[in-house]
Amino acid sequence: MPQDSLAQLTARVRHFAAERDWEKFHSPKNLAMALTAEAGELAAEFQWLEGPESLTPDAELLSRIRGEAADVLIYLVRLADKLHFDLVEAAQAKVDLNEARYPADKVRGQAKKYSEY
Amino acid sequence: MPQDSLAQLTARVRHFAAERDWEKFHSPKNLAMALTAEAGELAAEFQWLEGPESLTPDAELLSRIRGEAADVLIYLVRLADKLHFDLVEAAQAKVDLNEARYPADKVRGQAKKYSEY
Amino acid sequence: MPQDSLAQLTARVRHFAAERDWEKFHSPKNLAMALTAEAGELAAEFQWLEGPESLTPDAELLSRIRGEAADVLIYLVRLADKLHFDLVEAAQAKVDLNEARYPADKVRGQAKKYSEY
Amino acid sequence: MPQDSLAQLTARVRHFAAERDWEKFHSPKNLAMALTAEAGELAAEFQWLEGPESLTPDAELLSRIRGEAADVLIYLVRLADKLHFDLVEAAQAKVDLNEARYPADKVRGQAKKYSEY
Repeated sequence: MPQDSLAQLTARVRHFAAERDWEKFHSPKNLAMALTAEAGELAAEFQWLEGPESLTPDAELLSRIRGEAADVLIYLVRLADKLHFDLVEAAQAKVDLNEARYPADKVRGQAKKYSEY
Repeated sequence: MPQDSLAQLTARVRHFAAERDWEKFHSPKNLAMALTAEAGELAAEFQWLEGPESLTPDAELLSRIRGEAADVLIYLVRLADKLHFDLVEAAQAKVDLNEARYPADKVRGQAKKYSEY
Repeated sequence: MPQDSLAQLTARVRHFAAERDWEKFHSPKNLAMALTAEAGELAAEFQWLEGPESLTPDAELLSRIRGEAADVLIYLVRLADKLHFDLVEAAQAKVDLNEARYPADKVRGQAKKYSEY
Repeated sequence: MPQDSLAQLTARVRHFAAERDWEKFHSPKNLAMALTAEAGELAAEFQWLEGPESLTPDAELLSRIRGEAADVLIYLVRLADKLHFDLVEAAQAKVDLNEARYPADKVRGQAKKYSEY
């Protein structure tokens, strides 16, 4: 039994799909497409807010945001599971890359550089 | 020092942003928007493949997919961090909900039901 | 020869795809997926800007925005062409619906109502 | 009164927003974000279909697809209107570019080249 939170979630959603015979719908292509749909639902929660407002959602909005973020994560762990890669390892490798690409003392506070992030 | 992989990643990307004074760009609205952009890059990797082909990407494609999935995860942990919620807890709660909503013996193998997932 | 600007564009991108034997990649599913990828590139141009800033992009940014909006439109007209519907007719029907759904004197200036738009 | 279908639609959705005092929500950034949300809803209609299936949606699915494509177009014309550019002109310029970039006799039927499209 995995102790790590993401490993546990991965195992659980794999079981969830298998029990429903939904594996057959879960090609990486379909999972990536479902992920963009959920990312779109997450975006919809923020679309008419100004940036600063979005820092203090009320309880109802926060609950919807959590639900949409959860859906994105669920499809993301499914995708990594189907393609046999470790999601956190991939993210750690990307942060390594970003640290080399964006030295703190060169890019500090700069939106311009950052927009190419 | 957190032992859990996602908690560690969250702490690391928070530090990465703080060191570069990029916190000011990271409103939840902006992070959600950046996440849809990364989800779009992930989708682009799959757009002309048929479903079955997407199960066996070559090494180069798999490497790009890992990189895009990593970017999605990075913005997702940043968003959850800024809004002070636990991402895996949110996902576990969503799976609880889905288990109640889609009883395995009712929806087994059905795309129609599933399309409303 | 169609006079209408969108009808002309539709005919031209159909010819463009046919000449390259790319019709085979253009299932409605793939076109919708490509559209989300282009929408993501459009979003990326705006992700770190505040709302008011986004009203006055410099010439270089405006040129990139035009290019990304163009890509979205190209996939949209391809999709409508493949599924044999008139895009502008569909949009006019949607505005009819929205006029009935959101009477001007009921929703004027309200973000809350609007967020359910 | 414009005769062109897209020019007419642009004028109509501008009037629709003005009448409701929703102009204030329509920064280009917010419109781009709303567009990704609608693109996500369009993607959702196709996410569990295989490519060939997506060519023959039944009447109910086709009606939902038309509605989502309409929403994408509505935000796209709003965005172009707010930033004062001609959407079809932008798309024609992009097709010019693509014709130069992808000579028909070089790329015919090739997914690889096309995937970098």
